[in-house]
Amino acid sequence: MSSLWIKNATVVTLDADGTVLRNADIFIEGKRIKHLGTVPPNITADEVIDGTNCVALPGFFNAHTHSPMTFERGWAEDLPFPRWLNEKIWVAESALTPDDVYWGAALAACEMIRSGTVAFNDHYFYMDRVAQVVEESGMKATLTWCTFGIGDDKEVGPGADAQLAFSVERQGSADGRIHTSLGPHSPYVCPPEFLKRVVELAEKHDLPIHLHVAESLPQVENSLKRYGQTPVEQLDALGIFDHPTVAAHCLALNEQDIAILAHKGVYVPRTPITYMKLAMPIRTPISALQAGGVQRIALGSDGPASNGTMDMWEIVRQAVWLEKYTQTDPEALPGDAALRMATHVGAQALGFAESGVLAEGRPADLILVDFRRPHLRPRHDVIASLVHLAKGADVTHVVVDGRLLMRNRELLTLDEERILYEAERHAFRMVNQNMQQMREYRA
Amino acid sequence: MSSLWIKNATVVTLDADGTVLRNADIFIEGKRIKHLGTVPPNITADEVIDGTNCVALPGFFNAHTHSPMTFERGWAEDLPFPRWLNEKIWVAESALTPDDVYWGAALAACEMIRSGTVAFNDHYFYMDRVAQVVEESGMKATLTWCTFGIGDDKEVGPGADAQLAFSVERQGSADGRIHTSLGPHSPYVCPPEFLKRVVELAEKHDLPIHLHVAESLPQVENSLKRYGQTPVEQLDALGIFDHPTVAAHCLALNEQDIAILAHKGVYVPRTPITYMKLAMPIRTPISALQAGGVQRIALGSDGPASNGTMDMWEIVRQAVWLEKYTQTDPEALPGDAALRMATHVGAQALGFAESGVLAEGRPADLILVDFRRPHLRPRHDVIASLVHLAKGADVTHVVVDGRLLMRNRELLTLDEERILYEAERHAFRMVNQNMQQMREYRA
Repeated sequence: MSSLWIKNATVVTLDADGTVLRNADIFIEGKRIKHLGTVPPNITADEVIDGTNCVALPGFFNAHTHSPMTFERGWAEDLPFPRWLNEKIWVAESALTPDDVYWGAALAACEMIRSGTVAFNDHYFYMDRVAQVVEESGMKATLTWCTFGIGDDKEVGPGADAQLAFSVERQGSADGRIHTSLGPHSPYVCPPEFLKRVVELAEKHDLPIHLHVAESLPQVENSLKRYGQTPVEQLDALGIFDHPTVAAHCLALNEQDIAILAHKGVYVPRTPITYMKLAMPIRTPISALQAGGVQRIALGSDGPASNGTMDMWEIVRQAVWLEKYTQTDPEALPGDAALRMATHVGAQALGFAESGVLAEGRPADLILVDFRRPHLRPRHDVIASLVHLAKGADVTHVVVDGRLLMRNRELLTLDEERILYEAERHAFRMVNQNMQQMREYRA
Repeated sequence: MSSLWIKNATVVTLDADGTVLRNADIFIEGKRIKHLGTVPPNITADEVIDGTNCVALPGFFNAHTHSPMTFERGWAEDLPFPRWLNEKIWVAESALTPDDVYWGAALAACEMIRSGTVAFNDHYFYMDRVAQVVEESGMKATLTWCTFGIGDDKEVGPGADAQLAFSVERQGSADGRIHTSLGPHSPYVCPPEFLKRVVELAEKHDLPIHLHVAESLPQVENSLKRYGQTPVEQLDALGIFDHPTVAAHCLALNEQDIAILAHKGVYVPRTPITYMKLAMPIRTPISALQAGGVQRIALGSDGPASNGTMDMWEIVRQAVWLEKYTQTDPEALPGDAALRMATHVGAQALGFAESGVLAEGRPADLILVDFRRPHLRPRHDVIASLVHLAKGADVTHVVVDGRLLMRNRELLTLDEERILYEAERHAFRMVNQNMQQMREYRA
């Protein structure tokens, strides 16, 4: 088994006690941390990394994204939501190709590794091509092929069978780095019959579920009008939450909804930058979820078409700052809690339950942050510095399952130069071709 | 005269037309841009920089900060404002030394240059030591020695004369890179008699004024109770706004206040990260200032003890995202407007009226951003990429008055390694010593 020895780092374990080890070593053998703190004498390793002035911590688990959508990033800014969606995003996506997905996700992977993300919870189309990116990059991911219901209550979107096959086939692939889940888009585009089928499949194949829930008040009102239930009540009644579920957003809940999510142990990833950029009201703040007993709040980027960045550092502090500001309470969402949401809780949400904490015997999914930076001095409080001040570019090394994916800012598994070129080329083609089609259609 | 030739860059001029030049050259001679776009044939330069795949734009003007306060950064997180101020910030500052100020500001200067800031509007104590940092670093700054009124209405804080002498003496020093202004802290700690004296001095010595105004509703209520006027009305009546004024924050204004600021052309720097981190309600959003005719809205970091970062990229997008979110309007504060606030308007606020725009004949205060980064691809819209996605670490070169302060991420004017060490050492001493004193005092 290969071994990797990180010497003399400050180790933020993110365990329940908030343990921070100073001048500590991490000895990794194979995929796991074998020694943490001190190592036995006379030990040797295949590779040694000097952790002096560096902080080691669990890598980020991005709990909700649509990573291929880098292709539309920066292309539809400062627009109201309906125009953003109808005139831009859906138009560009209307002739999406599997290659677009591959290069879009590969670009996102470069960005994620560079900014310290070790795993992502991805919800999109042509997920076999995202799986290829996961295989090649060495990252971990939970992949969800998004499905829609169409027409009346009984009809199901095309390709749902193939998408299900993907989930069953790929579960646990890439040496266990790929997990899969079932991905009905949301209760507002998936009829109840379809959702019932998802529950059956989840039951039969032991698959978790990842969907969008209660992103806005109008969605909730429509659900009440149509079904006499809130989206959360409806999903609960259909049995969705009897399976491990990641319910993204949940911005407009009532007390009963919150109680259901708490009782059923549903994971709720928040993507604060999307809410700000697209001006989506958060009617149910993190504080309200916590007060109602929802423990499993994670953090994610959402798709880069809406939020832009895949950088979890910015997302962590956005969550903290937005919560403090909207609650008019500087004590709301302390930094260490947000950091835990982005690591430990995220790892649970993605089904990598042992990750997100640094401890002996745990998977070596970790990052090193170099504190020889003016913006990271003085080091009064390493957690505060990580939460409020650290940047993606401060991450020097990324390790997943004991394997180095980045060493001293150099990506080791991906051909970044080619990806920058191809991702941009595909994005330009997609946007220009489809906008051309739209212009012709309208003319 | 020395010359610097940046070849083949994308140039975001930030002029009124929003001109973006592709494959453009910038030829700098002495302190100024001599050619922009194409250069005459047979020209040579002392140094040539390849701008391929890079974007050149005006450097940031941080319009309100207390740069030395890096020493308290990350040391007082997640606290309510009174505890933050009384138990932490003021305690640590109670035995502030000029050396603390020097090293704190030097640390901030490293961070500012590294993230593309060319000038800062600084409001603090022992400003002669910040002037030293400006001289050594090559940055531009407007320096304000903060003064308080104490006791009854007629008494003026100690040292006000020396502080005034600083402003008069240092105005235009460091070859014009240092500007000064008068710095009564705020109307809530400066009695009217003191403020009248400030107006006389501004008049006599032709100095601008930089102060804090209307940071909270209680401040406004106290002012109404005490003086029968809002802070803005009071300052206007005292004649403050008849001089060029930077009125930081202005978070709680009424319509009449806004009309006064608009009419008098007052600069209003906003520091969005402080408001979020300390949960300070913004009762007067940027949109309301704009609707009321206030044109001169700039952006700043505030002191790093409260907001943490000096990185204007984060501040620009925070301003944009917070405005969109709080106004529930994704069209509020478009990115290009925010970028202009952080550059052109900031330059005006600091009295460097020719800067903040790239054009022939203008001072060469500019930065280069390397777009060979996964998070900056695809390049659908360079302004959107800059506003929502660019990071401090993407800045490769910083030029002030035609002089390179950073080349390929290497600081050329400051001894960064020593500054990291000394700034941290001074910060630890200050915090530990003063907390020790406080414990003894209480025991």
